[in-house]
Amino acid sequence: MNVLIIGGAGMVGRKLAERLAKDGALGGTPIRAMTLFDVVAGEAPAAAKFPVKIASGDLSVPGEAAKIVADRPNVIFHLAAIVSGEAEQDFDKGYRINLDGTRYLLEAIRQAGNRPRVVFTSSIAVFGAPFPEAIGDEFFTTPLTSYGTQKAIGELLLADYTRKGFLDGIGIRLPTICVRPGKPNKAASGFFSNIIREPLAGHEAVLPVAETVLHWHASPRSAVGFLLHAATIEGSRVGPRRNLTMPGLAVTVGQQIEALRKVAGEKVVARIRREPDPAIVKIVEGWPRNFDASRARSLGFKAESTFEEIIRIHIEDELGGAIS
Amino acid sequence: MNVLIIGGAGMVGRKLAERLAKDGALGGTPIRAMTLFDVVAGEAPAAAKFPVKIASGDLSVPGEAAKIVADRPNVIFHLAAIVSGEAEQDFDKGYRINLDGTRYLLEAIRQAGNRPRVVFTSSIAVFGAPFPEAIGDEFFTTPLTSYGTQKAIGELLLADYTRKGFLDGIGIRLPTICVRPGKPNKAASGFFSNIIREPLAGHEAVLPVAETVLHWHASPRSAVGFLLHAATIEGSRVGPRRNLTMPGLAVTVGQQIEALRKVAGEKVVARIRREPDPAIVKIVEGWPRNFDASRARSLGFKAESTFEEIIRIHIEDELGGAIS
Repeated sequence: MNVLIIGGAGMVGRKLAERLAKDGALGGTPIRAMTLFDVVAGEAPAAAKFPVKIASGDLSVPGEAAKIVADRPNVIFHLAAIVSGEAEQDFDKGYRINLDGTRYLLEAIRQAGNRPRVVFTSSIAVFGAPFPEAIGDEFFTTPLTSYGTQKAIGELLLADYTRKGFLDGIGIRLPTICVRPGKPNKAASGFFSNIIREPLAGHEAVLPVAETVLHWHASPRSAVGFLLHAATIEGSRVGPRRNLTMPGLAVTVGQQIEALRKVAGEKVVARIRREPDPAIVKIVEGWPRNFDASRARSLGFKAESTFEEIIRIHIEDELGGAIS
Repeated sequence: MNVLIIGGAGMVGRKLAERLAKDGALGGTPIRAMTLFDVVAGEAPAAAKFPVKIASGDLSVPGEAAKIVADRPNVIFHLAAIVSGEAEQDFDKGYRINLDGTRYLLEAIRQAGNRPRVVFTSSIAVFGAPFPEAIGDEFFTTPLTSYGTQKAIGELLLADYTRKGFLDGIGIRLPTICVRPGKPNKAASGFFSNIIREPLAGHEAVLPVAETVLHWHASPRSAVGFLLHAATIEGSRVGPRRNLTMPGLAVTVGQQIEALRKVAGEKVVARIRREPDPAIVKIVEGWPRNFDASRARSLGFKAESTFEEIIRIHIEDELGGAIS
């Protein structure tokens, strides 16, 4: 089997590549070769049992997509996107990369003609407030950002290309990934991870919203699990409705902090500094906070059921088991 | 006020143009000029009190959209589309006209910079089976045709361009328009109109499905009413969810026939010949049949409440009040 990861240099893409390198197979079939494509050159995972090609380029340049699917990969993960904030600031760039880029890719796959499994990462940003208590699988997509609009359009295209038999797509709407490794970033959602990761590493973290804020989380390990399951699930089990809200865990910021206290103690929790930021408070108010992801769960997608578990995964996978 | 109708040569476009010509105004503001644009040259309505320009061209050719909005119309009706059957047969043409054409138009309007009201006709084809008993305003869009996919994408783009302040859009999902005037056509939905129009004109009509088939109807007069109301409604009343399922009437084919009997008598009804067509039966099974269009009704959109009324409108508007 030949695997292509588009967006292979991003956090989730790298973790996926590492997992595939370690497993050496996908759904029981040995991996013969893997390509990691991104706008910047990524890094091959250590100790892969198969050749890994690193490629870089701009998917939104006509002709580029045809090149990267020329060797007709069997499974394509499409994780690449301009993120929410940038797509909102630069309208044209967001549509060029997130809409045109995705469309070029689907069209290149159609022309290649080998009907691969295409796993597309969508987002809960396809939903826009006001919301029901828990957003069900049949709730409509009325995004309140250009990013969410572009993801919702990608979902529609993926389903139509699948229905026409041009490819075999599964779209997965990821929860907010928590705990995100790496440095604190300026994404409005960054604090959900910062308030766990930084105190665990001995650093102070800023909490800009109230502890009552409810949000929808899954670990990076779960995200990789969703991708692997989406890559191998029988299309006939999914049917024509190809886009799925992934399971996750709805917890308040207060519950996140309580979990941190249980796992790491009061000394670590004391490193969280409350500093309300009205701009972030306002952005977060428009975000979906809770889902009933029955369909994905019944199809075998799994996420964490406690926030302690999410913290422990971070400590295992990123900190080698140690807390500062 | 300057009005542009894109798709001005089609059935609904012509009726809309006639109504505007007769009224001489839209929402109380006198119309100064009107342009009817279509892929073929249309006909100016008789006796307009303002100049009517007839233009033709292909909206999906880059640069064309900029030309047709160069005089910065205040209200733009975008009714043009490749219909369902053709968009399904010719995948590339459907996407070129229905998606690229719409996107070029929205982008040209953004560049023109005058933020007009844009009324976009979407379709109940944005929904795909299985359905609840009545499809509510928050039901998700999982189209089962490329046409429905293209309309759902148009809705998303319209909402995002509106949210960004580039234009002021309202999308309306039309019911099946019944009774469609003119010759019987080969559209799979044609029989809903044929079984009323043809018998009233003294001709035989073929009914290819069972009388139990339930469907969602509104008259051509209501369609024009929806467009006029969408052109003048306050955007703030609608909010960010810019796409609305229009009200309609859910009736079975049997109820259509009963209404025809009441309005025109047994002699007319006897001109309906039952000739089941398995291909049409199958297509119709996938169509939405009943809606709860509460939101549009609460915003003042109105449709017929009995099928007799729909038949009487046809007799008044198309037959000069006379039945053969």
